[in-house]
Amino acid sequence: MAPQPIPEDYQPVVESRGTVNSPIFSTPINQLNPYGPNPADFLSNVNQFQLIDSTLREGEQFANAFFSTEKKIEIAKALDEFGVDYIELTSPVASEQSKKDCEAICKLGLKAKILTHIRCHMDDARIAVETGVDGVDVVIGTSKFLREFSHGKDMNYIANSAVEVINFVKSKGIEIRFSSEDSFRSDLVDLLNIYKTVDKIGVNRIGIADTVGCANPRQVYELVRTLKSVVSCDIECHFHNDTGCSIANAYCALEGGAKLIDVSVLGIGERNGITPLGGLMARMIVAAPEYVKDKYNLKMLRDIENLVADAVEVNIPFNNPITGFCAFTHKAGIHAKAILANPSTYEILNPNDFGMTRYIHFAHRLTGWNAIKSRVEQLNLNLTDEQIKEVTSKVKSMADIRSLNIDDVDSIIKKYHSEIKA
Amino acid sequence: MAPQPIPEDYQPVVESRGTVNSPIFSTPINQLNPYGPNPADFLSNVNQFQLIDSTLREGEQFANAFFSTEKKIEIAKALDEFGVDYIELTSPVASEQSKKDCEAICKLGLKAKILTHIRCHMDDARIAVETGVDGVDVVIGTSKFLREFSHGKDMNYIANSAVEVINFVKSKGIEIRFSSEDSFRSDLVDLLNIYKTVDKIGVNRIGIADTVGCANPRQVYELVRTLKSVVSCDIECHFHNDTGCSIANAYCALEGGAKLIDVSVLGIGERNGITPLGGLMARMIVAAPEYVKDKYNLKMLRDIENLVADAVEVNIPFNNPITGFCAFTHKAGIHAKAILANPSTYEILNPNDFGMTRYIHFAHRLTGWNAIKSRVEQLNLNLTDEQIKEVTSKVKSMADIRSLNIDDVDSIIKKYHSEIKA
Repeated sequence: MAPQPIPEDYQPVVESRGTVNSPIFSTPINQLNPYGPNPADFLSNVNQFQLIDSTLREGEQFANAFFSTEKKIEIAKALDEFGVDYIELTSPVASEQSKKDCEAICKLGLKAKILTHIRCHMDDARIAVETGVDGVDVVIGTSKFLREFSHGKDMNYIANSAVEVINFVKSKGIEIRFSSEDSFRSDLVDLLNIYKTVDKIGVNRIGIADTVGCANPRQVYELVRTLKSVVSCDIECHFHNDTGCSIANAYCALEGGAKLIDVSVLGIGERNGITPLGGLMARMIVAAPEYVKDKYNLKMLRDIENLVADAVEVNIPFNNPITGFCAFTHKAGIHAKAILANPSTYEILNPNDFGMTRYIHFAHRLTGWNAIKSRVEQLNLNLTDEQIKEVTSKVKSMADIRSLNIDDVDSIIKKYHSEIKA
Repeated sequence: MAPQPIPEDYQPVVESRGTVNSPIFSTPINQLNPYGPNPADFLSNVNQFQLIDSTLREGEQFANAFFSTEKKIEIAKALDEFGVDYIELTSPVASEQSKKDCEAICKLGLKAKILTHIRCHMDDARIAVETGVDGVDVVIGTSKFLREFSHGKDMNYIANSAVEVINFVKSKGIEIRFSSEDSFRSDLVDLLNIYKTVDKIGVNRIGIADTVGCANPRQVYELVRTLKSVVSCDIECHFHNDTGCSIANAYCALEGGAKLIDVSVLGIGERNGITPLGGLMARMIVAAPEYVKDKYNLKMLRDIENLVADAVEVNIPFNNPITGFCAFTHKAGIHAKAILANPSTYEILNPNDFGMTRYIHFAHRLTGWNAIKSRVEQLNLNLTDEQIKEVTSKVKSMADIRSLNIDDVDSIIKKYHSEIKA
């Protein structure tokens, strides 16, 4: 096939102002921040979301977790300082020590509200309201799977229990949330019915839980938006990460009108866990930078992650958003060149916001002469661009043979420089 | 406030058949697999997607990556056996050894097609077509950021270069893909214009790249769907993971009509990387189980991840989908009970599909008597349910004091059993 010319109808365009960062393109509101809330989502809570940290509840269900009372208090204080809105604790019914720990944390006088998480049962509710918590999170399985193989109850029984527990907890002047479990495998009519019922009797929040981690983002958006038309209370969402979508699902839930997201530090929880606090911060700071920076103490993130990682004896994943060791490392020559000119070219997150720093990796065969030039300047040497290109090719040849470190590259540069100047 | 009765208009519902797994609820097609492609997405490629593995291109840009020729060949062969459709390699222009490695991998006679990735420039194209590759992936920055701070060219220059390079590569009988870089920060009109142009002259694929990791799922869906109305060629997508959405974005791209997804093993790449092969498999097996199980050799996943993790000297993240150490560990008593009755209650992925196994964790204070009963049976001891509940409370008391392991629990159970039987 012979080469073809540019089609005659190709239209070179004048620079326009919109970008593709929103489903409805080029909206004026969005030009202020192209990653901001989509103006088509009238119910979006992207720039007014709240966090329920469940490191001390869901996180205690992580395989490696065993938190002493002292460690729980240390974690609760750190989360409070970070600025989470709620801290959720293991049910006081789980064990005698769990109850004592719950009482101890309630006495700390934290700014964050303290919640505990119980089964939808009066036996549990009676114990929970005596611990001093600000709120109780009630959950019951509504999917066919859980109704058959877990508690064995039908929807009428669930509705009756929910109403009894909600009325009881409210009578004590305590916040109450009602959540279905395994919501995305539950019957939609059942769900809407039970949520409408509990909303009517004055529940503070309803919760949707993707207990098995099966939900996908657009489906989450649709379900939340539908629920939003049925209830007037706040909607909280809880997403497991089995299929890697827990952060994205949380974001789409907020777009659809959910207000609160359950997180845990590093996402620890049952199986491979839930929406991670840090990962969600990465997502949200892009969408609502002022809100996130004002509200949360982002520079604490690394320390909180290290605190919890140490407590449960895991390493920070190498690819963790924000705090993974390479999150702000740039390597390819073409990337390094642009980053040196303007960091925004290849960074959507600013490492300074999190007390982190950027690193331009130049000791490898994909390096480019701009990265080497930057290093030459750091070394306070004086070479022309042509000379830098020549020494770059020496670095690349050496890097083809073996893995290089910074000292290796510095030696190559210094040797070249001394030969030139000799 | 006095307790309220159940509202009179509460409607106990008869079991209906739909679930909330699709934005258009209760669709008959979806009842076959409630996690399957959304029937409202007429262009969905969720059950006919293809993979372009870029471990040996994007992955080589990972901070820790230095692949010897032998390691590249080992990884390429493993990916081929796993069943990826394409393997993308570093540009032969990057270094002399990169060129030789490209030529060596092309000579392996793999089933997967071999691609190399070059700048949109004739100098690079001339070298690429001589390496023996099946296809060339061309990329150029189209965002204002990259046009200003990287290559400094305008859209007309980009269009001219693209047409020249595409015609040249096609004249050699080799596949060609044209991708914009930083597509989600590019002007929409620019994007549609350039894609329409290259589609008209017969490019094989166009690529969308979320180079900085800023895109969110619904925005991805909208852009892909819009592009799909402009071009007739296949659409490939490349998502960085800076804000934790790379798997979800890939899924939504397929829903919108993209056909090919760029992945790398463990997601290694610039900064914290791109859509991980394993995580995407977790997402896709839920949506298109037969397609995924037939096409990909899923039981190899763990070995491939270990191969690459060893090569780049990182640990498998503790929370990695599928292969993280706790991905199939169940801990809470209420979970363990249901899992023992039916694994689907708390698992959307079947560990057997990946050659993995499930583990019920019972040595902790959140344990329940069903988990302990299962252990008692494994130990071939004979206790009544009442006795098991009693020994469970002993386990919980001990677990309140310190972290337990399996041997500790077995000792408690055996001691109790011998006392009972004495």
